[in-house]
Amino acid sequence: MFETMHVRSGRPWLLDDHLDRMAGSAARLDLDLPPRAELVGLADTLCAQWPAGTEGALKIICTRGPEDGDGITCYGTLTAVPDSTHAVRRNGLRLGTLNLGLASDARSAAPWLLGGAKTLSYAMNMACQRWAAAAGLDDVLWVSSDGYLLEAPTSTLVWLEHRTLYTVPQATGILSGTTARWLLDHVDALGWHAGERMVRQDELERASGVWLTSSVRGIVAVRELDGVKFTEPAPTETLRDLLGFQA
Amino acid sequence: MFETMHVRSGRPWLLDDHLDRMAGSAARLDLDLPPRAELVGLADTLCAQWPAGTEGALKIICTRGPEDGDGITCYGTLTAVPDSTHAVRRNGLRLGTLNLGLASDARSAAPWLLGGAKTLSYAMNMACQRWAAAAGLDDVLWVSSDGYLLEAPTSTLVWLEHRTLYTVPQATGILSGTTARWLLDHVDALGWHAGERMVRQDELERASGVWLTSSVRGIVAVRELDGVKFTEPAPTETLRDLLGFQA
Repeated sequence: MFETMHVRSGRPWLLDDHLDRMAGSAARLDLDLPPRAELVGLADTLCAQWPAGTEGALKIICTRGPEDGDGITCYGTLTAVPDSTHAVRRNGLRLGTLNLGLASDARSAAPWLLGGAKTLSYAMNMACQRWAAAAGLDDVLWVSSDGYLLEAPTSTLVWLEHRTLYTVPQATGILSGTTARWLLDHVDALGWHAGERMVRQDELERASGVWLTSSVRGIVAVRELDGVKFTEPAPTETLRDLLGFQA
Repeated sequence: MFETMHVRSGRPWLLDDHLDRMAGSAARLDLDLPPRAELVGLADTLCAQWPAGTEGALKIICTRGPEDGDGITCYGTLTAVPDSTHAVRRNGLRLGTLNLGLASDARSAAPWLLGGAKTLSYAMNMACQRWAAAAGLDDVLWVSSDGYLLEAPTSTLVWLEHRTLYTVPQATGILSGTTARWLLDHVDALGWHAGERMVRQDELERASGVWLTSSVRGIVAVRELDGVKFTEPAPTETLRDLLGFQA
């Protein structure tokens, strides 16, 4: 399993939330993580030399290795935020939908499908993003077989309707987005409410703003979905400021 | 992606078939494999010191590494066949079914789901096998959301009805089993026919023999499925001999 964090002012943002999620992934994989202090130490060591004024992407990876191996290996990397991330923050995203083949309630009843776990098994996630690139798009949004929008391969869907910021319920088996969760916990500062609900594509087209959130990109406006242009969402800057990201 | 082969008489059995399947996986992952001679050379080097009279399991792994990395890294391992494999060849398998959440036709229309590709993303396959172990079973058999039996996490389903040996159609998105394919291509030696069809659990319970095939275990009788005992299939030895495996 792995976690990727935004490094700002020389520190990983939301480190505790990410390590909580990693503990949840480990439980779903029947894997014992090292003591939390060890993972915090790994993050500290990597961040120690990082220039305070520079954004970074910190990745912590823990793996069992071969199924018959015992123990667990954890390591980390810290890299600069690529130019493409800055470009997408400015320009927003053109998305296409891809059917995930699973019903929106399939994973809640089937823990062996590992819904909600952030494992290293990302072949399909990456195949979907390559599909997007080949179609001249920036990313994809997964749709359940019963027609609900779920999440993107590496980010979380949030949208605004009548001063309520929504995301998709966990019961669909999506990954719990740390950035989205923090945002929903703090939108009362803007006088908004936070909500969770299932959403269909035609409903999303009528929202007053649609975004993807993720740890390193922060919050990025969705400008197009399956060829339908979305209104430029007025509050993108406000939400990005609230989250503490630069454009 | 990876391939695992049975090493017998100091050579990997069905090497060409495995490398063909690896090429298919690479195509689904938009990945360029090294020239085939290089992969054959890797297998040769590993097998060179292996004692001719000892069964082995040869694994060849090719990986892109990080999504933004360029090129591909291939390496291999050669290990002894574990005692547990010999035990299961003798004793057969107790299986439980697990719902895969996908309809039997979901993957044929959605190449981004990587049906038929043998990728390294095995977290869910391994989670299913841990589920089996926790339930006191040997392995699981995946069922589609519309009620068809598909495959096991690391092996292929074959069954015998009225002198026809069947397996599940590729169109369901299962991995093409090299051992099952070879067996179906050679059952005319036993006076049987080879077939492919979709099968439900109640139909399987009426078959005259049910097996799982895989590269290192060879062919193993299914003795129980979801608590229903299966008849000891008379031709297990004959099929194992045809495939050239020892008990």
